[in-house]
Amino acid sequence: MVVKVYGAAFTSPKRVLLCLIEKGIEFETVPVDLFKGEHKSPEYLKLQPFGSVPVVKDGDYTLYESRAIIRYYAEKYRHQGTELLGQTIEERGLVEQWLEVEGQSYHPLLYQLVMQIVFNPLIGVPRDEKAIKECEAKLASVLDIYEERLSKSKYLAGDFFSLADLSHIPFTELLVTKVGKEYMIRDRKHVSAWWDEISSRPSWKKVTEM
Amino acid sequence: MVVKVYGAAFTSPKRVLLCLIEKGIEFETVPVDLFKGEHKSPEYLKLQPFGSVPVVKDGDYTLYESRAIIRYYAEKYRHQGTELLGQTIEERGLVEQWLEVEGQSYHPLLYQLVMQIVFNPLIGVPRDEKAIKECEAKLASVLDIYEERLSKSKYLAGDFFSLADLSHIPFTELLVTKVGKEYMIRDRKHVSAWWDEISSRPSWKKVTEM
Repeated sequence: MVVKVYGAAFTSPKRVLLCLIEKGIEFETVPVDLFKGEHKSPEYLKLQPFGSVPVVKDGDYTLYESRAIIRYYAEKYRHQGTELLGQTIEERGLVEQWLEVEGQSYHPLLYQLVMQIVFNPLIGVPRDEKAIKECEAKLASVLDIYEERLSKSKYLAGDFFSLADLSHIPFTELLVTKVGKEYMIRDRKHVSAWWDEISSRPSWKKVTEM
Repeated sequence: MVVKVYGAAFTSPKRVLLCLIEKGIEFETVPVDLFKGEHKSPEYLKLQPFGSVPVVKDGDYTLYESRAIIRYYAEKYRHQGTELLGQTIEERGLVEQWLEVEGQSYHPLLYQLVMQIVFNPLIGVPRDEKAIKECEAKLASVLDIYEERLSKSKYLAGDFFSLADLSHIPFTELLVTKVGKEYMIRDRKHVSAWWDEISSRPSWKKVTEM
């Protein structure tokens, strides 16, 4: 049964694509046009009641929330492709810790920057420069902690690539491109080396070519 | 080795206490006085560089982020106490989905209400009534989706209690007490029954008596 990934053109669903490629799992994508409001259609809301992307259908099984989906496939295909959860329960604990840091401390700030700098101008909403400055300052503090961590281990959860790193890739790509804040990565030696490492993975190249 | 839980008097760390009690794991609590700034002390920042609670020390192993800690103990002591991850990989997928919904869609709104209604008055910051109204409306929409879900299964991830339900308890207790919005739970028949069920667990009684 081929996994169907809905809304693959958008940023959060790219976490799922990255994971499926790393694990060598066959999938197909199903477009969801957010600009036409397809994510608010009755059929789509049956799959994903919050009206957001991604959602996957795998036979009769439906799952949403990108970080839940990547955990599910990393666990289900534990012994296929890249090991993304660490080798031990303790390593997995650290993977979970840094996945939570991404979800709770990194992503919300970056998401606000994307909304302010990339999305709002598209819909004619003026940028809120004060909000942008505040977000940027908070994100700088978070990245200072990453810098300290990455001075001690090659990846976030240890010396192994994991879901914790993977989950950062799609939105960090926006930070260094469309948001125009690449300096936030480049000014931090270890964060910069980590970003080069994780963004040069063949899985991410494949996703960006899709 | 007894697990040490730092900052147990605060709301997020109660997720950890609930989990440890459900699993029958021995622990002791280490006070962290946020009002005295102990969470920003150099010693504490060595344990938790973001300066937030909780963090656990378990022998040489240190872990932070409440939802990462509960996943770690639910996995490590899988066959002891209450099973909190479901029986199958598919059930665990749904547990992860609803844990993510809690972390990404439920908690941020409830946290803002707690800050506006409970915390800000304590430090002399006036309530922002517009922000409160917006949060409340968004939380109502989220709870409508919970109501629909809970009309089909007793708990969020299925007909079994899990980390997904557990993770909601500490802040929902604030919603119905200090935030003064119990009606948001009571106006929804299935959410109300679910709240009665999960908040009457002996583990939560123990936490509230601590």
